[in-house]
Amino acid sequence: MSSARNVTQKLIADHLVAGALEPGTEIGLHMDQTLTQDATGTLVMLELEAMGLDRARTDVSVQYVDHNLLQSGSRNAEDHEFLRSACQRFGIWYSKPGNGVSHPTHMQRFGVPGATLAGSDSHTPAAGSLGMLAIGLGGIEVAQAIAGDPVHLQMPQVWGVHLTGELPPWVSAKDVILEMLRRHDVKGGTNRVIEYHGPGVATLTAMDRHVIANMGAELGATSSVFPSDERVREFLAAEHREDDYRELVADEGATYDVTEEIDLGSLEPLIALPSSPGKVVPVTEVAGTEIEQAVIGSSANPGLRDFAIAAAMVKGRQTDDRVSFDINPTSREILQDLTRMGATFDLIGAGARLHQSGCLGCIGMGQTPTSHGNSLRTMPRNFPGRSGTPDDHVFLCSPETAAASALTGEITDPRRLAEELGLTWGVELPSEASVNTEMLLAPPPPEEAAEVALVKGDNIAELPDFEAYPDTVETTVLIDVGDNISTDTIMPAGADALPFRSNIPKLAEFAFRDVDPDYARKALEVAEDGGHAIVGGATYGQGSSREHAALAPRYLGLRLVVAESFARIHWQNLVNFGVLPVEFVDPADHAAVEVGDRLRLDGVRAALEQDELELHNTTQGTTYAVRHRLSPRQLEVLLDGGLVPQLRNRTTDEE
Amino acid sequence: MSSARNVTQKLIADHLVAGALEPGTEIGLHMDQTLTQDATGTLVMLELEAMGLDRARTDVSVQYVDHNLLQSGSRNAEDHEFLRSACQRFGIWYSKPGNGVSHPTHMQRFGVPGATLAGSDSHTPAAGSLGMLAIGLGGIEVAQAIAGDPVHLQMPQVWGVHLTGELPPWVSAKDVILEMLRRHDVKGGTNRVIEYHGPGVATLTAMDRHVIANMGAELGATSSVFPSDERVREFLAAEHREDDYRELVADEGATYDVTEEIDLGSLEPLIALPSSPGKVVPVTEVAGTEIEQAVIGSSANPGLRDFAIAAAMVKGRQTDDRVSFDINPTSREILQDLTRMGATFDLIGAGARLHQSGCLGCIGMGQTPTSHGNSLRTMPRNFPGRSGTPDDHVFLCSPETAAASALTGEITDPRRLAEELGLTWGVELPSEASVNTEMLLAPPPPEEAAEVALVKGDNIAELPDFEAYPDTVETTVLIDVGDNISTDTIMPAGADALPFRSNIPKLAEFAFRDVDPDYARKALEVAEDGGHAIVGGATYGQGSSREHAALAPRYLGLRLVVAESFARIHWQNLVNFGVLPVEFVDPADHAAVEVGDRLRLDGVRAALEQDELELHNTTQGTTYAVRHRLSPRQLEVLLDGGLVPQLRNRTTDEE
Repeated sequence: MSSARNVTQKLIADHLVAGALEPGTEIGLHMDQTLTQDATGTLVMLELEAMGLDRARTDVSVQYVDHNLLQSGSRNAEDHEFLRSACQRFGIWYSKPGNGVSHPTHMQRFGVPGATLAGSDSHTPAAGSLGMLAIGLGGIEVAQAIAGDPVHLQMPQVWGVHLTGELPPWVSAKDVILEMLRRHDVKGGTNRVIEYHGPGVATLTAMDRHVIANMGAELGATSSVFPSDERVREFLAAEHREDDYRELVADEGATYDVTEEIDLGSLEPLIALPSSPGKVVPVTEVAGTEIEQAVIGSSANPGLRDFAIAAAMVKGRQTDDRVSFDINPTSREILQDLTRMGATFDLIGAGARLHQSGCLGCIGMGQTPTSHGNSLRTMPRNFPGRSGTPDDHVFLCSPETAAASALTGEITDPRRLAEELGLTWGVELPSEASVNTEMLLAPPPPEEAAEVALVKGDNIAELPDFEAYPDTVETTVLIDVGDNISTDTIMPAGADALPFRSNIPKLAEFAFRDVDPDYARKALEVAEDGGHAIVGGATYGQGSSREHAALAPRYLGLRLVVAESFARIHWQNLVNFGVLPVEFVDPADHAAVEVGDRLRLDGVRAALEQDELELHNTTQGTTYAVRHRLSPRQLEVLLDGGLVPQLRNRTTDEE
Repeated sequence: MSSARNVTQKLIADHLVAGALEPGTEIGLHMDQTLTQDATGTLVMLELEAMGLDRARTDVSVQYVDHNLLQSGSRNAEDHEFLRSACQRFGIWYSKPGNGVSHPTHMQRFGVPGATLAGSDSHTPAAGSLGMLAIGLGGIEVAQAIAGDPVHLQMPQVWGVHLTGELPPWVSAKDVILEMLRRHDVKGGTNRVIEYHGPGVATLTAMDRHVIANMGAELGATSSVFPSDERVREFLAAEHREDDYRELVADEGATYDVTEEIDLGSLEPLIALPSSPGKVVPVTEVAGTEIEQAVIGSSANPGLRDFAIAAAMVKGRQTDDRVSFDINPTSREILQDLTRMGATFDLIGAGARLHQSGCLGCIGMGQTPTSHGNSLRTMPRNFPGRSGTPDDHVFLCSPETAAASALTGEITDPRRLAEELGLTWGVELPSEASVNTEMLLAPPPPEEAAEVALVKGDNIAELPDFEAYPDTVETTVLIDVGDNISTDTIMPAGADALPFRSNIPKLAEFAFRDVDPDYARKALEVAEDGGHAIVGGATYGQGSSREHAALAPRYLGLRLVVAESFARIHWQNLVNFGVLPVEFVDPADHAAVEVGDRLRLDGVRAALEQDELELHNTTQGTTYAVRHRLSPRQLEVLLDGGLVPQLRNRTTDEE
């Protein structure tokens, strides 16, 4: 390797506590910061409690409340109260409901170039916009990071994406990441960090970069990274934090493991069709399709610009009679700025339904469309059912495309509408943000924190305990699914399930609801008879980082997942909760397995010393070659029964 | 009766089509306008369909979408689509989701002094603020009004409330109606129209009057009426509708059946304690009680002033760390005005969670508090569980009290805080409103309307059909409740039940959930064995006008309700769905009845010719004297099995 380093290598080298910069090997990284959100954070706090942690050992740890904001029933408010008390107890910042979505809020208030960030949310890599290395993980690994332990992952390849040119009018950052998805689909980024470089980078603001880094998660990338340059300085200055700026750029002559070119000037408005972020086509291909909803917001288009351009387009006009035009501001600060510049007035005047700041419809918390209607969203994901409607028709696009389509009532290329209406491209943004940190509650000093009791409402259940992994596993296949199954399918979110995120026994009833409504019942029936197995296709477990997608099935007796390939975070989560994930050596074997078959693995500990092992289908009398990719550290975690027993036995060698 | 008439008598005389102005006798009134909202409107549209109506025969009929806005699942959006299609079919205005709460929006866009309004919402009397006679009814009676049929009710007493003086600083309209509730509790207004008069009236704006007229519903009043005077002219002028103004004041020398005096200058900030709007005390009595939530909005404090005063109080300050400060704008127009004057910015800056325009938390659609926390709301009702938390602690107060308490984190007299912080009383409002009618869709012309097909999603079930009332009833008592049971207890709203308002079989599963979770199952078990009876205390069925509270139990086999007394709208609804409501002549008999007892009524048709009849408790071998107060018209409706069979048999003598 040349001594010239790219930004990713610098970030990793600066935080490396185990391993080496060799792609494919396991490394350990120190995390400077952590981020949790409420849908995953309640478990993290229970995990910290189980660990007996006294106080967070990071530079900054922040708990956001952005997912469960509808408060349809007392559970949400009680969870918020629990989180607030836990933050005080463990020395963590608490961002009140209404303060905003974790990713843009964290970027605005806490993002520091050169730092690492572990987040229990798959879109954590958005912080790569500021030259950070930010990684989405299951909550239990974030709990470890809060406790000062390193985070382990496979040393990624660095995928250099060389940007040239400048985006044409009515094409924006969202179209850049949609172009990446058009080219590489939802698994193109597996075990890679995407690093954007080249002269085109300077044409993108820090918030534009957030849009691109955020949805790198949809490519399956470990993270996305931008340099820290003048655009970052400008951003931090507007946030009254110029002192936090430091330059972080690739060395002259730095190279990349994989390379890619994008001429920004050649891009056009793009749109992801139902129901995958990877099904991207030019907007022109589906123009004229009638829509019933257009939603602007979410961490995938969080910036002031994203709302302001939509406001400028609809100002003095009226959205179509048939369309619900929903605006989800991403943070209190952005909503204040938007209001100060008059854009809130224009949006409402054009027929917008203005919602509170938060994730909301992105995670199926409200704004659910009809079964047959087309919904256009600037959100990052459109996996089947994620909107709350099992057979939904959700498209992903830029704010420009969403606003143009809201005006016409059909999918519309914003360039065409701009020409028709004589719209002017671009918006003037205030140079200073409405900085307001009052909804961010700082943790009390240690002596005061030690006195704080956790406030556990009825909905906060105990963290389940799990036994060590058995040496012989014989389990029944209960679920057999195809490619690209997301954690939204494994463990649905949405307004009915999300309130139970702190209550695993209750939450588990919703697992695989849309695949087999009887899954939970059947799983419990065989739980004492060796538990059950799941068989899946490629990229099994993509999407959200929710560890509940491992923990809830494990609670129901899951011991083994056999897939063609895994998405990174879910793969780690399975191991962390004592479930063995293995891959078919020959993907064609997948087709032979039937639901109801019994799968047996003998002498597990010894077998796992090899990379490849034999999996017996005792029902069919056949054998499949499968491989695991677990590091020695992961093997130990698995055999112990996951991290929960490890945490419980953790020697509190603190202070 | 003197020839000098009060406003109420003039309104009634102008619209009388049957009966005479003699309190206690039944009258029929022509309705100029109707108002429906989505939680009750879907049934109204099914009723219009069952009637075979071609086109609305009112001056104006408007369907609002303000209740089911969370869209947690596809049902809400599909209901909206159904309502939109039905409005087009039947010639009704459609107010899109996000346009606002029915009552203030109707007042702003359609209210006309001197007109009558029938609404399938118990707060319909809010329109009395403009000198209208506005009455809340079950949906099926509103359906009749849409078809041009008269509305029947008992000729009310007119209760003249003579206002003198002027409200002191930090005391506002909400405190006037809370004072009425403090004096008269939740049944003080039964079978009365409250007419406000005297020199104090001129000190109240039209929107102040809306606050007072709206919550007249909580007194059990048939309606509340204000004169149409200069304040009304100013209001209509600000709404660009000065042409709709006409003066309507009481004749010199007009008298009232009941009289009352309020010196506005003597009032102080008041608050209703959990869990009844009638449990009113001065704020000072509970000052210092810690709160977790303060909500401003709803039809009970809908005006620009109500939000603007809160904004002025919190401007540049921060709400308490422990408090969720929720702002529910009531209409798009008010939110635009609020934004234009900078108040939206101030509210958000102080930590407000700004929600979309609509009813939301008022009806338990989100914003649900914890089980133990105190929630302060400017809403009209705090019946147990209405917030979505079964054992909630909801207080009702003015925006001034709510904002002061949000700042301090405890119940706070706004006068005290104003003194402490040096706050100035009063707000400057724009003289012209942001009039914007684009979210109100006018119905198409008749020939086009006739071609429109109703769009029925899976959630739109058929209207159930019911047989004629039997001549002998022998039923089992399944429910026995105390005083002041509201329709929120009989047929809960909230985020889990409300989406099923168009699906009676499914909705019925939620009936009496908090009294007996097994009620629906037990009721169906005895449905073929004579059905069941309910026994209740005083003011049975108060609160919301939802006809579902009669229809769903009827669907489960309810035939008889025996109570000490009834709230008007629910009493009418029972008859309209073929359930006989009777009152104990001796309320003491109530205590003798046990759940499980069999009640028998012989020769119903003949027995009902008398006002009093004998009800046999065949289990105990006893007899109770009960009375019905049904008019001959109502008796006929009951014996036919309710209005549904009548509508279905309606001779379509149209055109």
